[in-house]
Amino acid sequence: MAMKLSNDIPNIAVGRLPLYLRALTHLKEQDRNIVSSRELGKRLGIGSAQIRKDLCYFGGFGKQGTGYHIDFLIEQLKEVLQVDKEWQVAVIGAGNLGSAISRYEGFVNRGFRISWVFDNQPDCIGQEFGEITVLSMDELEAVLCQNHVQIVMIAVPVDQAQAVADRAVVCGICAIINYAPISLEVPDDIIVEYIDPIVHLQHMAYYLQNEKEVQ
Amino acid sequence: MAMKLSNDIPNIAVGRLPLYLRALTHLKEQDRNIVSSRELGKRLGIGSAQIRKDLCYFGGFGKQGTGYHIDFLIEQLKEVLQVDKEWQVAVIGAGNLGSAISRYEGFVNRGFRISWVFDNQPDCIGQEFGEITVLSMDELEAVLCQNHVQIVMIAVPVDQAQAVADRAVVCGICAIINYAPISLEVPDDIIVEYIDPIVHLQHMAYYLQNEKEVQ
Repeated sequence: MAMKLSNDIPNIAVGRLPLYLRALTHLKEQDRNIVSSRELGKRLGIGSAQIRKDLCYFGGFGKQGTGYHIDFLIEQLKEVLQVDKEWQVAVIGAGNLGSAISRYEGFVNRGFRISWVFDNQPDCIGQEFGEITVLSMDELEAVLCQNHVQIVMIAVPVDQAQAVADRAVVCGICAIINYAPISLEVPDDIIVEYIDPIVHLQHMAYYLQNEKEVQ
Repeated sequence: MAMKLSNDIPNIAVGRLPLYLRALTHLKEQDRNIVSSRELGKRLGIGSAQIRKDLCYFGGFGKQGTGYHIDFLIEQLKEVLQVDKEWQVAVIGAGNLGSAISRYEGFVNRGFRISWVFDNQPDCIGQEFGEITVLSMDELEAVLCQNHVQIVMIAVPVDQAQAVADRAVVCGICAIINYAPISLEVPDDIIVEYIDPIVHLQHMAYYLQNEKEVQ
């Protein structure tokens, strides 16, 4: 059984585990059995010492010189990250983005299932995204509470995001992925992660500028 | 004019500038003129000392006790990040996700314009996403090279992502946003940023687990 040695594990180390898991799963699909921290690091652009250190927080999972058994490490990381089961996720907003998220097949086998999608537009409600039917926002509280939903993904227009988050928080959710380009104000015990492609683009643009000046 | 005092500015500090810019733009839309580092920090969940330190790398932009002039700081940050102009971006992949990205109106006024979208599916090619027509992948090299495109966003299935990245790199692009859940192998001088919601979900799930154990 995977160990959690301490609650003081740096958040940034925890954040790298999904990258390791993704790369290991990719290697497994290529019928590989063993991988060294060096090869894993090369694939991910992360130093091999960093990888060994991160994995040590959780018990190590490998012996020096032999590499990691891919199947075993996948299983252990899934257990540590608690994605050896399936979390049911609600998506709020069924526009272009909410639709794309809900139809995305990549959640399967990675620990999550989009189980509900909500929207407030009459022409959206009742639409079918694969196996899911878009529900009215009027049903949000009932569905979230009755199903003890812990994770929501917010994909509504920016001016509605805070109000939607407030409604979800009241229903006892613990974690939000927010696609709306705004920082949400939520209680301290709610985890929020942001996905805003323009933040990434602007970050990269800084370096493009520098490169141009050098030329 | 905004200063770039050094090339040794930590990448993580550069990465926070887009968050400051986004929050400042939001304040401006609320007709605010002045903001303190404390208020900005509270909105972003970042310490005020951290914000002052980050901005100091680029010249400071404020005087102690008076707060930051929002209009001025927005202008300076846009200049530092080189988003006071408009970068033309190509999206590769016109499925659900590529379509959602291409139709997203949030790029306007943040320094980027989606100018081209490519796909290899005959039923996709020729579709219109707002003002953009989906082009054939056969045209990728010609369009990227002739227009000196520097930034591409990859939204193709995972098994095609590396090949698509290779083709874009040959055309001289400098930066990639990769939505496919795979780490790309590209030359060291190419900047790659990843957007994979499941990495965020798995990261959060770790803490949900811990919370449950505590209860």
